[in-house]
Amino acid sequence: MLIVMRHGATDAEIQRVVAVIEELGYKASPMPGAQRTAVGLVGNDGRVDASRLEALPGVQEIIHVSKPYKQVSREWKGENTVVRLPGGVAVGGTEVVAIAGPCSVESERQILEAARQVREAGAVILRGGAWKPRTSPYAFQGLGRPGLQLLAKARDETGLLICTEAMDPEGVGYVAEVADIIQIGARNMQNSSLLKAAGRAKKPVLLKRGLSATIEELLLSAEYLLAEGNHAVILCERGIRGFDTATRNVFDLTAIPVVHKLSHLPIVADPSHGTGLRLSDGAQSLFPDQFAQLMREVRVIAEVIGRRVAEPASVSA
Amino acid sequence: MLIVMRHGATDAEIQRVVAVIEELGYKASPMPGAQRTAVGLVGNDGRVDASRLEALPGVQEIIHVSKPYKQVSREWKGENTVVRLPGGVAVGGTEVVAIAGPCSVESERQILEAARQVREAGAVILRGGAWKPRTSPYAFQGLGRPGLQLLAKARDETGLLICTEAMDPEGVGYVAEVADIIQIGARNMQNSSLLKAAGRAKKPVLLKRGLSATIEELLLSAEYLLAEGNHAVILCERGIRGFDTATRNVFDLTAIPVVHKLSHLPIVADPSHGTGLRLSDGAQSLFPDQFAQLMREVRVIAEVIGRRVAEPASVSA
Amino acid sequence: MLIVMRHGATDAEIQRVVAVIEELGYKASPMPGAQRTAVGLVGNDGRVDASRLEALPGVQEIIHVSKPYKQVSREWKGENTVVRLPGGVAVGGTEVVAIAGPCSVESERQILEAARQVREAGAVILRGGAWKPRTSPYAFQGLGRPGLQLLAKARDETGLLICTEAMDPEGVGYVAEVADIIQIGARNMQNSSLLKAAGRAKKPVLLKRGLSATIEELLLSAEYLLAEGNHAVILCERGIRGFDTATRNVFDLTAIPVVHKLSHLPIVADPSHGTGLRLSDGAQSLFPDQFAQLMREVRVIAEVIGRRVAEPASVSA
Amino acid sequence: MLIVMRHGATDAEIQRVVAVIEELGYKASPMPGAQRTAVGLVGNDGRVDASRLEALPGVQEIIHVSKPYKQVSREWKGENTVVRLPGGVAVGGTEVVAIAGPCSVESERQILEAARQVREAGAVILRGGAWKPRTSPYAFQGLGRPGLQLLAKARDETGLLICTEAMDPEGVGYVAEVADIIQIGARNMQNSSLLKAAGRAKKPVLLKRGLSATIEELLLSAEYLLAEGNHAVILCERGIRGFDTATRNVFDLTAIPVVHKLSHLPIVADPSHGTGLRLSDGAQSLFPDQFAQLMREVRVIAEVIGRRVAEPASVSA
Repeated sequence: MLIVMRHGATDAEIQRVVAVIEELGYKASPMPGAQRTAVGLVGNDGRVDASRLEALPGVQEIIHVSKPYKQVSREWKGENTVVRLPGGVAVGGTEVVAIAGPCSVESERQILEAARQVREAGAVILRGGAWKPRTSPYAFQGLGRPGLQLLAKARDETGLLICTEAMDPEGVGYVAEVADIIQIGARNMQNSSLLKAAGRAKKPVLLKRGLSATIEELLLSAEYLLAEGNHAVILCERGIRGFDTATRNVFDLTAIPVVHKLSHLPIVADPSHGTGLRLSDGAQSLFPDQFAQLMREVRVIAEVIGRRVAEPASVSA
Repeated sequence: MLIVMRHGATDAEIQRVVAVIEELGYKASPMPGAQRTAVGLVGNDGRVDASRLEALPGVQEIIHVSKPYKQVSREWKGENTVVRLPGGVAVGGTEVVAIAGPCSVESERQILEAARQVREAGAVILRGGAWKPRTSPYAFQGLGRPGLQLLAKARDETGLLICTEAMDPEGVGYVAEVADIIQIGARNMQNSSLLKAAGRAKKPVLLKRGLSATIEELLLSAEYLLAEGNHAVILCERGIRGFDTATRNVFDLTAIPVVHKLSHLPIVADPSHGTGLRLSDGAQSLFPDQFAQLMREVRVIAEVIGRRVAEPASVSA
Repeated sequence: MLIVMRHGATDAEIQRVVAVIEELGYKASPMPGAQRTAVGLVGNDGRVDASRLEALPGVQEIIHVSKPYKQVSREWKGENTVVRLPGGVAVGGTEVVAIAGPCSVESERQILEAARQVREAGAVILRGGAWKPRTSPYAFQGLGRPGLQLLAKARDETGLLICTEAMDPEGVGYVAEVADIIQIGARNMQNSSLLKAAGRAKKPVLLKRGLSATIEELLLSAEYLLAEGNHAVILCERGIRGFDTATRNVFDLTAIPVVHKLSHLPIVADPSHGTGLRLSDGAQSLFPDQFAQLMREVRVIAEVIGRRVAEPASVSA
Repeated sequence: MLIVMRHGATDAEIQRVVAVIEELGYKASPMPGAQRTAVGLVGNDGRVDASRLEALPGVQEIIHVSKPYKQVSREWKGENTVVRLPGGVAVGGTEVVAIAGPCSVESERQILEAARQVREAGAVILRGGAWKPRTSPYAFQGLGRPGLQLLAKARDETGLLICTEAMDPEGVGYVAEVADIIQIGARNMQNSSLLKAAGRAKKPVLLKRGLSATIEELLLSAEYLLAEGNHAVILCERGIRGFDTATRNVFDLTAIPVVHKLSHLPIVADPSHGTGLRLSDGAQSLFPDQFAQLMREVRVIAEVIGRRVAEPASVSA
């Protein structure tokens, strides 16, 4: 921690900062510069009460050298977290795992058909909302618990794993009973009641980055999950809000290597919103044959960069 | 609704759009221009299925002339909504209503002292969190239900009304029992489970704008409350996320007249984050005497623009 | 053009709008809806004076169906513009053209060494600033005209083409004499004096998108160039300003297909800022061997998607 | 300057950083913490070459304690700069100075009429563009030098001072001959050729903040002017780009106190874009009687906060 003094701070003010640091049980290291003096606090164990120093006369700014998150950080755990799912699928290793499916579960026929198509093309996880967070109260809010049953049926028939969203603490219980991955949506990234409930669930969590969340905020939300004991966390970059309404969202490509530097958690890319054009022929979804073509290209490119696409489990007849 | 055709769309494509509009039971009105033809849909009663038109060959874009919200709009209700609170306080009329208090309830002594000070200075509503949405799981999360009891005590002693935050559907029940206004925080503006629960509560709701929410999204979240039957809704502009970390948030002054144009709901300004400087002497809070000075200036300025500051109720001894 | 009336606009107000449209020589087509009436203006030839309609009583909003740019649009010219450069290099066709080089020209030795390395790795165009737009007046501002001579020398020795920035109308003259492509930087995207000068130059122009420019604004800046007679324009997406300082800029991937939809002009991706990490080992530049590795991967991926990487011209001994 | 080491940096890496700091002629002060060690550089005189330290093994980040601007900073000059204009008008003191006028000079009749109206209402400086930076090449670009003559005539007739924009180095010469204040527009805030020319002019400069410029970037652009010898600089906050197209721009109110903390230069508020509603009756301009009403309210409010509105000079008959 660095206590930056104002330009023109008096010696007495600097000495006061030094004295308070020492009272708190740390060592102070003043560093005079041409414009101002900064006082380093040596031996910070993460429990320094900055507000006490901030309020001292002559103090301009406190610079925190350490990050506010802990268990999600690379420094807490150096090796990558690999989230292992039923059937041998692993997220965070070298395999490229494709998650696909419709926005919401609408009917048995629709979800079974979609499941077969995405499995055929090469997805291993089926997504689809039983509950949907919607901007408007008049939009379809999902089938609810019957939708979960339809997802379970699609899993039985195709061998795909299921990823679906929980929207409140009560819903976490229902989703955790059925799904393989509990999704927390972008609108709920800072819903701390929901994060705590998901942190106590016994299933992996896919945590989507909020529309205007910084990477630090995303990691702090993940920290809620780990702090409650759930270490099987998959982050998800899905595009952020920009200033140009010609595009729906801006997919923040760089977030992925930045997260890899800062955290051991895996992060998946959800390009559906961030690259979907408002101007395109019918919103951001792909038709089945477009998805199949995409997966063919992904397979070749994965090889070029030394990876391979994960295959779905076979269904026992 | 306006169906904009691509440049070079054929006559057959335009005729197809006209035919589908008529099949849907509306009238079509083609408008050829120098660059492209647009087809107006006449008689839109808000139930047109745009996706059917969007998918037709030659269609470039659908422009919605109507807004997606209904009951919150000025067109649904022309006169201003005035939210009436106990003791004759009204939000949305000509009186300037001051809401003040600490970030969270920490102890009986702290909240009673704060209540007396803000009442003295001229506030009529006491704010303070019993539950606090925090970015970090390691930050103080609030006293919970005992905090609500301390707020009730502060009301008894000072006559101030109480505004405090609910963070999940279960919490809405507890807050509604005690508070005069249920607050929904910025991080939860699109938490639809919470909005639905607050919409069924029998207390007024203060709905804060999310950090990167558009005004349309704020109004759609308010629509959730009205759609559930709660019409006593106060909107709150509290600053939005900008690109410059030298300031915490950007207070979006213009949002206030824009909301007045679009909606009949009252909107209050919460300048604490949007004008709080990262560079200032100790975060964004005011000391008691700064608040008192501010209220003295507000009283004079209110008069200049033909308004007056609301006074707190007297407490019967 | 669509003239949207306020909810509750009177018949007389609507009739007035119709009358003014007809006076202006166009046909009016009123479209009543459940919430409001909109009046279509039929036959718009791009010369309608909207302000006259905007000011009429009862008018809420004017919606422009046509885009404000002309010559850069797909509708003006359907086929892709291919910018042909000396030595048979073409930007905008199926070849992948790599542009590389240092930020600025610093010395003969530095630029010749850099030129050889990027040519070796597979670049065909050498970039490097003789003048540099800098945020601070105390940062190195470039060698100026002697820097241009060093670039010319690097071209002679390697066969690479030269792309370098002009920063004011006077500089356009100097750059156009020497360079193969005149670059207009992000900070100058809306410098109209510079755009006009570059529009009169006889060399292709690489126009970078401003840090917070919308795609429409980028296209309007390109329109300045075409309006002055220069049709050899290459657009460049280089990342936009976001809200998270953990990344320098956000590379706006989606801008590329959006530009392809809206315009016939080629657009190149400059990933150096948008994907450069503030946290990385030494800013956003690649070391020569990293660039060579990148180009090897690009060659394979280009093939997968049916393209190939352009090769530099050979230098006659 | 603080050199933050990676978590797990070895003692040898830390010692290497210390050795390099000492080689550079400064003192090193290592500060071990629970997560990582940081090394303070003591005695920084603003000439440390950070890139040399950044490249050392084990270094994660360099934190600059000093700001990159110098002469514009409060630390360079503690007292407020007051820019004194002809006729005794001073910007940066206690007087509230109103600047008003049309977007551009269109004709003698128009500018003289506007000048009389704004003077009547209480403005002391007339603004109006002879050259206008426009997003589209097809929009009116201004009358040019004849427009400057009309502004001079308006000054002769009303006693108002003249503020008008220069758009390139050549234009600075023409504007400086006639105007009392040379304006640099938002689009040109980082046009360094223009800044350098204005820095050599003998007239005060009004520098507008760019649409997405940080406060630090605004101050660095002002530093260009001071570095060239022009100390009569007035900054201008005019609204920044946000994400919600329902408002044109977001007026960044907090920028004003932040600039006051960081710099001695005066800053004026230009609310015309930042508070202008896209939804309003006819763009962001005020009608003359609205401006007069505004000035009446400003006069009373100025008094409440201990200031007064500046009066225009009288014209000798």
